Amino acid sequence: MKRTQLVAAADLTKEEVVFLIDGAEKMRGYRGKDFEGKICASLFFEPSTRTRLSFESAVHRLGGSVITIADAQTTSLKKGESLEDTIRMVETFADLIFMRHPQNGTAAIAAAQTKKPFINAGDGGNEHPSQALLDIYSVKREVGRLDHLKVGFGFDPKHSRTIRSLARLLALFEGNEFTFVCPPSLQPEADVLKDLEARGATFNIVHDLSEYGKFDVFYANRLQEERFADHDEFERLRKEFIITRSLAEPAKTIILNPLPRIDEIETDVDELPQAAYFRAVENGVYIRMALLKYVMGNYCN
Amino acid sequence: MKRTQLVAAADLTKEEVVFLIDGAEKMRGYRGKDFEGKICASLFFEPSTRTRLSFESAVHRLGGSVITIADAQTTSLKKGESLEDTIRMVETFADLIFMRHPQNGTAAIAAAQTKKPFINAGDGGNEHPSQALLDIYSVKREVGRLDHLKVGFGFDPKHSRTIRSLARLLALFEGNEFTFVCPPSLQPEADVLKDLEARGATFNIVHDLSEYGKFDVFYANRLQEERFADHDEFERLRKEFIITRSLAEPAKTIILNPLPRIDEIETDVDELPQAAYFRAVENGVYIRMALLKYVMGNYCN
Amino acid sequence: MKRTQLVAAADLTKEEVVFLIDGAEKMRGYRGKDFEGKICASLFFEPSTRTRLSFESAVHRLGGSVITIADAQTTSLKKGESLEDTIRMVETFADLIFMRHPQNGTAAIAAAQTKKPFINAGDGGNEHPSQALLDIYSVKREVGRLDHLKVGFGFDPKHSRTIRSLARLLALFEGNEFTFVCPPSLQPEADVLKDLEARGATFNIVHDLSEYGKFDVFYANRLQEERFADHDEFERLRKEFIITRSLAEPAKTIILNPLPRIDEIETDVDELPQAAYFRAVENGVYIRMALLKYVMGNYCN
Repeated sequence: MKRTQLVAAADLTKEEVVFLIDGAEKMRGYRGKDFEGKICASLFFEPSTRTRLSFESAVHRLGGSVITIADAQTTSLKKGESLEDTIRMVETFADLIFMRHPQNGTAAIAAAQTKKPFINAGDGGNEHPSQALLDIYSVKREVGRLDHLKVGFGFDPKHSRTIRSLARLLALFEGNEFTFVCPPSLQPEADVLKDLEARGATFNIVHDLSEYGKFDVFYANRLQEERFADHDEFERLRKEFIITRSLAEPAKTIILNPLPRIDEIETDVDELPQAAYFRAVENGVYIRMALLKYVMGNYCN
Repeated sequence: MKRTQLVAAADLTKEEVVFLIDGAEKMRGYRGKDFEGKICASLFFEPSTRTRLSFESAVHRLGGSVITIADAQTTSLKKGESLEDTIRMVETFADLIFMRHPQNGTAAIAAAQTKKPFINAGDGGNEHPSQALLDIYSVKREVGRLDHLKVGFGFDPKHSRTIRSLARLLALFEGNEFTFVCPPSLQPEADVLKDLEARGATFNIVHDLSEYGKFDVFYANRLQEERFADHDEFERLRKEFIITRSLAEPAKTIILNPLPRIDEIETDVDELPQAAYFRAVENGVYIRMALLKYVMGNYCN
Repeated sequence: MKRTQLVAAADLTKEEVVFLIDGAEKMRGYRGKDFEGKICASLFFEPSTRTRLSFESAVHRLGGSVITIADAQTTSLKKGESLEDTIRMVETFADLIFMRHPQNGTAAIAAAQTKKPFINAGDGGNEHPSQALLDIYSVKREVGRLDHLKVGFGFDPKHSRTIRSLARLLALFEGNEFTFVCPPSLQPEADVLKDLEARGATFNIVHDLSEYGKFDVFYANRLQEERFADHDEFERLRKEFIITRSLAEPAKTIILNPLPRIDEIETDVDELPQAAYFRAVENGVYIRMALLKYVMGNYCN
């Protein structure tokens, strides 16, 4: 098992997912010199504080150094330099690159350009594999297993990169049943459903939260106004697709959310033990430590 | 004596001020590994190069690592995330947080949200305690004592966070006399004066610099045009409330200024030995090192 | 031989250039603790990702720490602070400063203000000495010598800081012949030519690429539309002054370019062994490591 680059969650094998989750567990509370003398390039051509700081914190916990582009506005990209040329430049400065980019498909272009270890930290609406790993690791931490789970996904599976990726990873494990909870206009795309079927998962689609209590895990992301032609319809649906305290408290369902949380989960849900989304942020640091070590060929043990 | 969070200068006891000043003296020229493996989050939701670089330099001198938000424009705050949620996120990445924020009262909100060591690096016009410590430490370094001082404060005590905080800290020590030098419209607020009285300081208010020579220390900040309805009045007062070379040179008065200096002190004052404002910047690094160690429970010795 | 500040490539002696190139060779692949406990201020008052990340990578390879201003918008400069005051502030935070600034002449002002080691990382169109060192080091690596070279410079020697600086450094060595390839309106300024003559170099000026194959090295930078009053003339010349695959492949001429490359070199030239411009980026890290050590009095050995 060996990998120096990670572009898409779907590329990961079940064996790798299990290996990385095991590694993440070993990284909890760890500070070491594994990356001493190593330089990681943190390239954020689109701002993302959460992902950037999580990766940078992971590098520092391993004793490495970071060079950062936090803002596309300060780069030669705006002078018309191609992404390929930017990567050829950066690979001479760093031992490993992680990159966020606003456009779909750029991670594959960057990875193909360099022989250095490379991690996609999100390319447009396409892929964000370390988020998917964070999410599946959190499911494992919170529920204790990754198979025979009933998982709810809401509320915009059609456009959600994080829902798509987590569902694909969970489909590597046996006996998982997915329920997509969303307005009819925001159902998952056919190709995603086909892929889940091919991987052996079963799924169904519902339009309300009436069966919320049956889920082991509910993964909620928010509706975005720009997806709706009609402002009134958006407002109506937004109020329907919310995890409220009265919904969450009586259920055992673990709640995850990719954050930032806006209003899809009420803030008084936060204090419930089921609310796992802030614990998940911490998990993200550990799974990224494991992933950084993996692509550098420096395995957790 | 123990403290893991610092929100306001007024919260500091006399004992703590003395302790931190002693610590700062020990930090002069120091480079160590006190913070090895520790990660400090440098959150600047409002740009402030001086304070940010001073804190970050302090962390590096202690051997720690820094993760930085240098610009609010690159954060999820603009996606509508609450400050509470941002802090819940950042506390999982870092061992200590220092934060600058443009709004009054945000430091208290952030500190209440986290159990991690936290230092307010300035919240709006409200509080900036490490600046107050820098200032009082500079008084001590320059004059040799903190009691029985005649201190002048100009020129906008009404709006100046730094004047208010320094006066409060100095009022912890015996026998200090404060003189506010300002236009009548910019006198300190009644609550500040009441607080100084309660702490045992004496003060008076004057409207010109005729008694400048009697001060042990003069703390000058600038008039800001936005405080004046009348542009001509601003221009007239601005020229009256300036530390000129001819005023400063014959006096022994030590001159402090929070910087950036615009035109409230003439540049040819800089070469006088009384001009302590650039030496004070250096003091800021040392007092912040002492403060960082204090809130981490890693005392200077 | 000793230097703590570098403002202009023209200040460097032949002995220093040779010394720094030797040092850079020793820095290839090096990671050490030469700068352990040292803090370098990376001041970019104008964005320049390539130069900033190259310098910062060099500092980290030497085990040093970095504090960064990546964007003038986040600094007190915009509050009206003078550059002198900014430098007085920063020198208290750092052991070494490197600075990029949009205005000509600012590097000399900053260097005069501080006794700390200082490197100009580009001041407007004026000087960018570490780029010149990167370029001459790359000539040495690629061709194997620095004397008796035929060097072509195109395509805008009139406005190019990098052409001017590299030509001046190469003129320190014996028997070099320079050919400027450019439209008549973009010939080098008379004072540059006079300086090259004074240093003993010979040169000529041509208006097309017909003699391309005779050069040992061709240093290409791009035409910039803003130099032309007439858009059509710009478009016509741009197409004439391009390094194409069919021009480059049959020649032995080594090709350099300061990057970013826009369209002055066709991308299918990149795979030719003559294309040295991405290898040159890597050289930049090593020559900057040698330069950082030199100004800190910590020589490569």
